[in-house]
Amino acid sequence: MSEMTTEILEQNLSKIVLVRLKGGKSLRGKLKGFDQHLNLVLEETEDTTSVENQKKLGLIIVRGDNVVLISPPPR
Amino acid sequence: MSEMTTEILEQNLSKIVLVRLKGGKSLRGKLKGFDQHLNLVLEETEDTTSVENQKKLGLIIVRGDNVVLISPPPR
Amino acid sequence: MSEMTTEILEQNLSKIVLVRLKGGKSLRGKLKGFDQHLNLVLEETEDTTSVENQKKLGLIIVRGDNVVLISPPPR
Amino acid sequence: MSEMTTEILEQNLSKIVLVRLKGGKSLRGKLKGFDQHLNLVLEETEDTTSVENQKKLGLIIVRGDNVVLISPPPR
Amino acid sequence: MSEMTTEILEQNLSKIVLVRLKGGKSLRGKLKGFDQHLNLVLEETEDTTSVENQKKLGLIIVRGDNVVLISPPPR
Amino acid sequence: MSEMTTEILEQNLSKIVLVRLKGGKSLRGKLKGFDQHLNLVLEETEDTTSVENQKKLGLIIVRGDNVVLISPPPR
Amino acid sequence: MSEMTTEILEQNLSKIVLVRLKGGKSLRGKLKGFDQHLNLVLEETEDTTSVENQKKLGLIIVRGDNVVLISPPPR
Repeated sequence: MSEMTTEILEQNLSKIVLVRLKGGKSLRGKLKGFDQHLNLVLEETEDTTSVENQKKLGLIIVRGDNVVLISPPPR
Repeated sequence: MSEMTTEILEQNLSKIVLVRLKGGKSLRGKLKGFDQHLNLVLEETEDTTSVENQKKLGLIIVRGDNVVLISPPPR
Repeated sequence: MSEMTTEILEQNLSKIVLVRLKGGKSLRGKLKGFDQHLNLVLEETEDTTSVENQKKLGLIIVRGDNVVLISPPPR
Repeated sequence: MSEMTTEILEQNLSKIVLVRLKGGKSLRGKLKGFDQHLNLVLEETEDTTSVENQKKLGLIIVRGDNVVLISPPPR
Repeated sequence: MSEMTTEILEQNLSKIVLVRLKGGKSLRGKLKGFDQHLNLVLEETEDTTSVENQKKLGLIIVRGDNVVLISPPPR
Repeated sequence: MSEMTTEILEQNLSKIVLVRLKGGKSLRGKLKGFDQHLNLVLEETEDTTSVENQKKLGLIIVRGDNVVLISPPPR
Repeated sequence: MSEMTTEILEQNLSKIVLVRLKGGKSLRGKLKGFDQHLNLVLEETEDTTSVENQKKLGLIIVRGDNVVLISPPPR
């Protein structure tokens, strides 16, 4: 993982990030932790795949190999 | 695996967790064990993929590479 | 593989286990051997994917990377 | 690969085995060789995927990562 | 990663690149960082998969194993 | 790769082999080279996937992870 | 990667090659660089997947794990 990736993730700890997963699932949650495989810990997570039917998932661990992209919120 | 992931999983040993697998399967069971690949041991597991047709699986070993996300229950 | 996984598999040697594979196949057979990749040796195996059409497979070697979950029988 | 897997494969050298591959292909052939990745050498192989249309493949090398299960013939 | 790949990516830092991902998604964004796995940091990113419906993603981290190809803009 | 695999491939250098790839593509070409990942160099290759529409590919390099099976011609 | 593969690729530097990718995409471009994972740098690349609708991609980096086969032009 590049230093820049680590830096961006560290700057966004405790902030809301959007995460797209393989298979099309989208998540929105507060970034609480991560490692070099992009395994993520998210808090107050919502499954935002379906606009009409957002499901609350709360605290979750995401296995990094499912991650396509991570997007911090616009500043 | 980040320390935080290990900590969260340890705090939830013997508690009910939800597990989403690649391919869409959902499981709910008591977390009895895990390792750094997210191989899991679950007890009193139910396959909750279909809301109408929940199947009891009892004690299971989940191979970690199938795991998308793990969600401890809300506190 | 966690010690607990090894322990559970060792306790179930020569007992019937259920195995779900990627792609949806289900197997039921007597666990005769395993390794840390979850490569399995099963005996008297039946392919239980289709309830109406269970096929006898006898002794088989399962390549571990196909395994989703392993379920010992209820005690 | 567990010792038992090696043993079973060694005992079945020059015997007919059934091999299921990812993607649903089934092969039947005489096991001539194998390695720890389950790369296989089969002789007098037939593609038995379609019951009506079995194709002769003769001598083949199977790349192990395609293997789902290997089944020696009933004794 | 070949030296040439590193060189091309370095020459295009802070320039717009097109990125195609597995599964068909297309992104266009300013390249801010990368590593040897082709993990990417993009800024002012747009999801250009659908010509009619381009979505702004802003700053994103792309996990390298999803990347099919990266295309710097024509000079 | 087992010694037998290497031996079979060496014996078939400069001979026609059939190669099945993941995704269903079939190739027929003269084996000019290989390595332990089953990366292959084939010459005078034809894409024989469609019986009616065989395409000439000439000299090709096949990335080994796409290979399902390799079949030397009957002797 | 076998020496022969390296040799063929080196002999084709600055020549047009055809590249087939997983998922069915076809590319045609001038080979400018490669490494042992078959990561490629292509110049003046065209996406030739659709015969009627060839798209110019220009300079691209292809992540090697997407490559199925590489074909130098007939001599």
